[in-house]
Amino acid sequence: MWRDLTPIGRDDRTHGYHRFAWTRADHTLREWFVGEAERRGLDVVVDRVGNQWAWWGDPDEALAAGRPGIVTGSHLDSVPDGGAFDGPLGVVSAFAALDALRRDGFEPDRPIGVVNFIDEEGARFGVACAGSRILTGAMTADRARSLTDGEGVSMAEALRAAGRDPEGLGPDAETVRRVGAFVELHVEQGRHLSLPEVDQPLAVGSDIWPHGRWRIRTLGEANHAGTTRLADREDAMLGFAAAVISARRAAEANGCVATVGKVVVTPGGVNAIPSEVTGWLDARGSDETAVRLVVDEVREVVADFEGLLTEDSWTGPTPFDPALVRRLATRLGGIPVIGTGAGHDAGILANAGVPTAMLFVRNPTGISHSPEEFATSQDCLAGVEALTTVLTDLAGASA
Amino acid sequence: MWRDLTPIGRDDRTHGYHRFAWTRADHTLREWFVGEAERRGLDVVVDRVGNQWAWWGDPDEALAAGRPGIVTGSHLDSVPDGGAFDGPLGVVSAFAALDALRRDGFEPDRPIGVVNFIDEEGARFGVACAGSRILTGAMTADRARSLTDGEGVSMAEALRAAGRDPEGLGPDAETVRRVGAFVELHVEQGRHLSLPEVDQPLAVGSDIWPHGRWRIRTLGEANHAGTTRLADREDAMLGFAAAVISARRAAEANGCVATVGKVVVTPGGVNAIPSEVTGWLDARGSDETAVRLVVDEVREVVADFEGLLTEDSWTGPTPFDPALVRRLATRLGGIPVIGTGAGHDAGILANAGVPTAMLFVRNPTGISHSPEEFATSQDCLAGVEALTTVLTDLAGASA
Repeated sequence: MWRDLTPIGRDDRTHGYHRFAWTRADHTLREWFVGEAERRGLDVVVDRVGNQWAWWGDPDEALAAGRPGIVTGSHLDSVPDGGAFDGPLGVVSAFAALDALRRDGFEPDRPIGVVNFIDEEGARFGVACAGSRILTGAMTADRARSLTDGEGVSMAEALRAAGRDPEGLGPDAETVRRVGAFVELHVEQGRHLSLPEVDQPLAVGSDIWPHGRWRIRTLGEANHAGTTRLADREDAMLGFAAAVISARRAAEANGCVATVGKVVVTPGGVNAIPSEVTGWLDARGSDETAVRLVVDEVREVVADFEGLLTEDSWTGPTPFDPALVRRLATRLGGIPVIGTGAGHDAGILANAGVPTAMLFVRNPTGISHSPEEFATSQDCLAGVEALTTVLTDLAGASA
Repeated sequence: MWRDLTPIGRDDRTHGYHRFAWTRADHTLREWFVGEAERRGLDVVVDRVGNQWAWWGDPDEALAAGRPGIVTGSHLDSVPDGGAFDGPLGVVSAFAALDALRRDGFEPDRPIGVVNFIDEEGARFGVACAGSRILTGAMTADRARSLTDGEGVSMAEALRAAGRDPEGLGPDAETVRRVGAFVELHVEQGRHLSLPEVDQPLAVGSDIWPHGRWRIRTLGEANHAGTTRLADREDAMLGFAAAVISARRAAEANGCVATVGKVVVTPGGVNAIPSEVTGWLDARGSDETAVRLVVDEVREVVADFEGLLTEDSWTGPTPFDPALVRRLATRLGGIPVIGTGAGHDAGILANAGVPTAMLFVRNPTGISHSPEEFATSQDCLAGVEALTTVLTDLAGASA
């Protein structure tokens, strides 16, 4: 499977991936998913949003019998210049675990589904987990359709270009009801499992930290960089720089993380004083109040420069299903249970009431969203084995 | 003339101009120039670089007779979202002055040329006054060809796309020799002429302040914004922000101006820690040592973040021809004589040994490189009248 996936959407120079929703690379990935599912005799269903579901067994018949399916999987899209594992590892491991179950002669008592969520990273239209958000109603179809990418193409236009009807977008309760439990396997995005005092290949995810995105907008007056006296200028770059520094300081003081990873300057000429700078602030932490304090501190600094800080998105703390988390940790021999600062489709499903948990596979570089992202073959195989154990447990006759 | 120029390369929303070298808008402007020249029976010559020269009289014959031509004009390109006057006012006024001379029955003793320098703003390839720099040998053709725009298109490729042979680029001494004197009329880019104690429509330019452009490059490690602890991250944005703030502080302390008007972030995702930030610093001042002190201070801050500051361009103080400056000021009835912080093709020609001066037309907003840039019709007509007087003086039989 990795051999087929590796070249899709890869930059030859950086070896990073550019797999954005509803692009050609995404289309190739979706065809790959259908091929893998059909090769295994699974039924592929595409929901109203475009998420792909490959079922072993009839989920509707099982649901009617009070035994809703067990779903695993993740996403295939990437951030700009992203790594190979974030997303695809969960989908590949899902198919591999299914192969292992069949090799073992396992006969499921509930249907098992493999999912590929569309547009998890939000790299193209700016909203992460768009596929699961629209599916569960956490984002309205109207808002989704009107989101635009960097070239000004709306999601509605992108859907049409990909041969899909944007009017079909919307929450899909029927699809969600089929999911009796969801376990997403994912590469770890920090160094916890690699710490000498931990040194474990796998962990169970317990919760997603509260996190949000804010837009910092400072205003100035475009003018000539050489002929405008300092006293006469209003330079929007100064407020932006102060905001960046205050975000880091506030994050340190409050035990959170804060990042400004994107900035747009108007007019953007080397010899023009900026009339407008927009920066995007990402802030997260295990404690909701602490994250709010960080953002408040940055807001004050931005206000000092007569700028504005506005909220683009906010997701409160998301605990996964405590019983399911305990069950996984126990079955897997007491492996570590950890929270995460990254958002996932698993979090969106948990918020929609689906019993959900996650499995993390050690990433020795601790680096994610970059070509440096990595997991050893040995750890990946340990992940498949763990997922096989979990599916046996959850979809078996004893469940 | 303004009626024809106004719509070219204008953004309908901001009413700012986007006229970059060797683009479609630039091509249209160049066609306009040829049309205006031909309508007046002038001979249009394009030099090795692409600068356009429209001659009244034969410059080579006159040069052989020891009476090299008198040239006026400016440029037609703009910064991103620039104003209508910076550049075009000098070209339009040149044609208008020529019309006035003919209306007056003036018979020139020397040929008179109108020039349109290509790529004065450097908005596309990063180097200001590229047309006159290559012409005079101040920038080598090799360096020019390899400059790239924001999309990675080299100047060589842009020239080819515009139907020109990039191998033809190079210094053109024959063209420079034809210029016995150059007077560039330009909209003022500060508030000096509008100060209540000055209140004059015109000034003569005496010199260009020393100025330069530097590139600030800070490096980090691309990583996930949510899962990477502050202690584990190397965030290239922090060094950039510190550099912005230090540039302003150092400029204040040393009586200079400093601007960071452009920034590029890699990878540039909202949820990715920046692995590389490149910012462009523009610094100028009336005193060379002071400007150097500002840049040294920023360099130290950047080095503290293990970043690099490199020089893109440096132009020392550029005095215009003192005798020519005095002559203009006298003939124009003792109008103010002022220095400027802006670079101009006139400065490049002055450095190449051409007797050069400038005329500035009052800009009541004091704002330049922006749609707010302005000059009243009355002041523009005063500019044409002054330029007519200057040409009569310099190209007349008594000269």
